[in-house]
Amino acid sequence: MKTVGIIVEYNPLHYGHLHHFRQAKAVTGAEAVVAVMSGHFLQRGEPAIAGKWARAEAALAMGADLVIELPVRYSAAPAEWFAWGAVRLLTETRVVDALCFGSEAGTLVPLLRAAKMLAREPEAFRERLKIELKKGASFPSAYGAALAAFGGEGAPDILKPNNNLGLHYLIALERLASPIVPHTIPRMQANYHDAAVSGHRIASATAIRRLIFESGLEEAGRYLPDWTLAVLRREFAAGRGPVSWESLAVPLLYRLSTMSAAELARFGEVDEGLEHRILAVLGGLRDGPASVERLLDALKTKRYTRTKLQRMLVRILLEQPKAAFTRAELEQGPSYIRVLGFSERGRHLLRQIRRKSRLPVITRVGRDNAALLSEDIRATAVYALAFREPDAWQLRRDYYQAPVMADG
Amino acid sequence: MKTVGIIVEYNPLHYGHLHHFRQAKAVTGAEAVVAVMSGHFLQRGEPAIAGKWARAEAALAMGADLVIELPVRYSAAPAEWFAWGAVRLLTETRVVDALCFGSEAGTLVPLLRAAKMLAREPEAFRERLKIELKKGASFPSAYGAALAAFGGEGAPDILKPNNNLGLHYLIALERLASPIVPHTIPRMQANYHDAAVSGHRIASATAIRRLIFESGLEEAGRYLPDWTLAVLRREFAAGRGPVSWESLAVPLLYRLSTMSAAELARFGEVDEGLEHRILAVLGGLRDGPASVERLLDALKTKRYTRTKLQRMLVRILLEQPKAAFTRAELEQGPSYIRVLGFSERGRHLLRQIRRKSRLPVITRVGRDNAALLSEDIRATAVYALAFREPDAWQLRRDYYQAPVMADG
Repeated sequence: MKTVGIIVEYNPLHYGHLHHFRQAKAVTGAEAVVAVMSGHFLQRGEPAIAGKWARAEAALAMGADLVIELPVRYSAAPAEWFAWGAVRLLTETRVVDALCFGSEAGTLVPLLRAAKMLAREPEAFRERLKIELKKGASFPSAYGAALAAFGGEGAPDILKPNNNLGLHYLIALERLASPIVPHTIPRMQANYHDAAVSGHRIASATAIRRLIFESGLEEAGRYLPDWTLAVLRREFAAGRGPVSWESLAVPLLYRLSTMSAAELARFGEVDEGLEHRILAVLGGLRDGPASVERLLDALKTKRYTRTKLQRMLVRILLEQPKAAFTRAELEQGPSYIRVLGFSERGRHLLRQIRRKSRLPVITRVGRDNAALLSEDIRATAVYALAFREPDAWQLRRDYYQAPVMADG
Repeated sequence: MKTVGIIVEYNPLHYGHLHHFRQAKAVTGAEAVVAVMSGHFLQRGEPAIAGKWARAEAALAMGADLVIELPVRYSAAPAEWFAWGAVRLLTETRVVDALCFGSEAGTLVPLLRAAKMLAREPEAFRERLKIELKKGASFPSAYGAALAAFGGEGAPDILKPNNNLGLHYLIALERLASPIVPHTIPRMQANYHDAAVSGHRIASATAIRRLIFESGLEEAGRYLPDWTLAVLRREFAAGRGPVSWESLAVPLLYRLSTMSAAELARFGEVDEGLEHRILAVLGGLRDGPASVERLLDALKTKRYTRTKLQRMLVRILLEQPKAAFTRAELEQGPSYIRVLGFSERGRHLLRQIRRKSRLPVITRVGRDNAALLSEDIRATAVYALAFREPDAWQLRRDYYQAPVMADG
C-alpha cells in the first residue's frame, strides 16, 4: 500500500490543509496518509488552539489514516530539529514511501540542491554562518544570509518559513539516507486570504486564529471545513480552548516569579544570559496586566525572534533541562511512535509498523511506558491548566485516552 | 509609652478581634499596640482571604499602631514555630512590654505551669511524645496526650487551638527569657456564633469566611466592623479576593504535575514519604474537578491533619526547601522587622525600634534588602496569581508598596 507522510500542526485544520492533503495523495499516487502532528506545543513556540486529540480527530475526519504525535522536544523546536524529529519518525515507521510538503518555492530542485550541500555541513558554510551571527542577526536571518552567500544564484529563499522547513526536511532525509521520496507542492500563501480554491475559502491558520480570538469561532467558520468546526465547537463549549499563551499566563508567571536567574538558566533555550533579561523585563512591566504578550514584546530584540522566545518559554514552562537539547541528545530522534488516532486503513499500517519498526508503538500509556513519554505527559498536564476549570482527567489524559478512531 | 503586643491573622478582622484588641489595652493599661500579623499565608496553611496590606489597613483602622509582618516561614508553620517567630519578633522590637492573647482556658496559671515545664524539654516528655506519635496520632494529638499524661491534673487542654498557641507563646517567652509580660483573656468561642458582645455580633473568622464564599460579602457584613467591610469591598471589587486555596489551584496543580516524587521531597513538610502519597492521590482523582478541596480530602489521614497538609502545600507552592526548616535554622527567628503599616503613635515606636533593635526595620524593599525578604516577596507574587487578572504591580507589590498609614 503506497503511503505518503505529511508533517502537520493543524492549528486549526483549514481548507489550505485540505488542499495540501489532496495534492499529497495526487502527486504521489498514495492510498494511505500518515500525518506526524505536533502535540500540545507547536513549532512557533505556542500552545495549540485545541488539544492534540481534537486536532487528530479533525485530521482523521479529513481522511488521514494514521496520526502520530511529534514529541514536544521536537515539536516546539527550531526548524532544524522540528524537521529532524518529524522526518526521523516518518522514516522509522518503515511504511512511508513519500513525503509531500508545501513550500513557497513550489519546486524541489533548488531546495534539494541546497539540502545536499548543507547535509554535509561544509566548514566554509559554518564559518559564514558564524560571521552572520556575530553581526547580531537572529539565527534564521543569519542562516538565510549564509545560504544566499554560499549557495549562489538559485539558492532558495529560506526566510520564507515553508521553504525553510522544507529545506530541513530534505537535509534530514539526506542525512538519514532515508528511503522516503520527497515531493513539494506550491504553498497557498497567506495573501491568498479569501481566495477561493475549489470553491473553498482559504485563509492562513494565523488569520483564522486571530478571527477566533477576536470575533469568535462562528465568524471563522467560513474558513473551516465542517469537521474542524464541529470539533472546535465541542471543545470550546466544554472550556477546552481556544487556548493561547494568555490562557497559560498564570502557570508561566508562577514559574518565572519563583525562580532565580541561575535556576532559569537550567532550562533549554535559556542561553546567552537570557535568564537575566527575563527577570529584568518581568520586573520592568510594573504597571498594567502581567500578560504574556507584554512580556514577549518587552523581551523581543533583533537577535531574539518572537518564535525563539516563545520556544524558550515552553522549555521553562515544561521545565525541560538544557541537557535534553544537546546536539547528541536531539540527533537520536524520537524514541517511540505515539499514536493519536487511526482509520481502518491506519489499523493495517499500525500492524505493519509494529512488525517492521525498531521503535515501540504506543497506543496506551501505562506504568511500563510512562517514563518514555514523560515530557509529553507533562505537556498535556500543563496544557490542561489553560482550560476553563482544572479537570483531573484532562490533566492526565495521556493515561486514559485511547487513540481516536475515524468514523466508518 | 506602655506597649502591648498581639499576634494576629485578621482573616478577616471581626468583632471578636475588636473585643480582644480592647481587652488587650484594658488589662495591660497599654497606650500603644504592636500587632505581629501573618502575611499572605496563614498558620492553618491557607492563603488569606485578602492581601496583607488590606488586612493591615483594617487593623490600623481599628486602632493598632504598628503592624509587622510575620515572615511566611513562620506564619504558615506549626503552632510551635508560628509562636516562636512571632514572640521573637515582638521581643526583638525592644519596645513591647506585654503580650496579650486569647485562650480557651482564659487564665494564665495552668498554661504558664505547663510552659515552664515544656521550655526545658524534659527527656521524659520527649519519650512520651514519641510513644504517642508511634501510635499513629497526628502531632497535635500526640503532643496533647503527652502533656496530659505528663502534666497531670490541671494540665491545659491544648487540643483547643488557642490554648495550644498560647502555650507556645509562653514557652517561647520562657526560652528567650523575654522581658515581655504575658496576659491572657478568655477567647470568644466559635459557639458564641451570633452572640452579641457590646452590641456587636460575633462569629468566628471561619464562619465569616464560609459566609463570604457561599453567600457573598454583604451577607457577612453584619459580623464585620465597617472598616473591615469597606476594605474587603474595595479589594474584592478589584478582583483581589476573596482568595481561597481554590483560587490557587492552577499554580498548585502546575507545581504538582511537573515534579517527580524525588523533587517534591526536597520541600519543607514533605516527609515520611508524603511525596509518593501526593502523586498517587493526584493520579487517583481521575474523574471530576482537580480541586484543592478534593486533593486535601483524599490526602487526609488520621496522622496527617488538614492543617499539616495545607502547610505542606504552601511549602511546595512557594518552593521552600527542607533546609529552611531545620530546628537550627528556625530557632534563629525572623531576621528583619517588616513594617506593613503604622499610625502616628506607630511612627514614634518605629523610631525607638530603629534605635534599639538589632534587626533591620524594613519599610521599603529595594536592591539592598530584597534577598533578605525573598520568601515573602515570592509569597506575594504567588498570592497575586489568585487574583482575577494577573497584574504586574501586584506580583511585585513588596517592591512598590509603602507602609499603610492610619487616617488622622
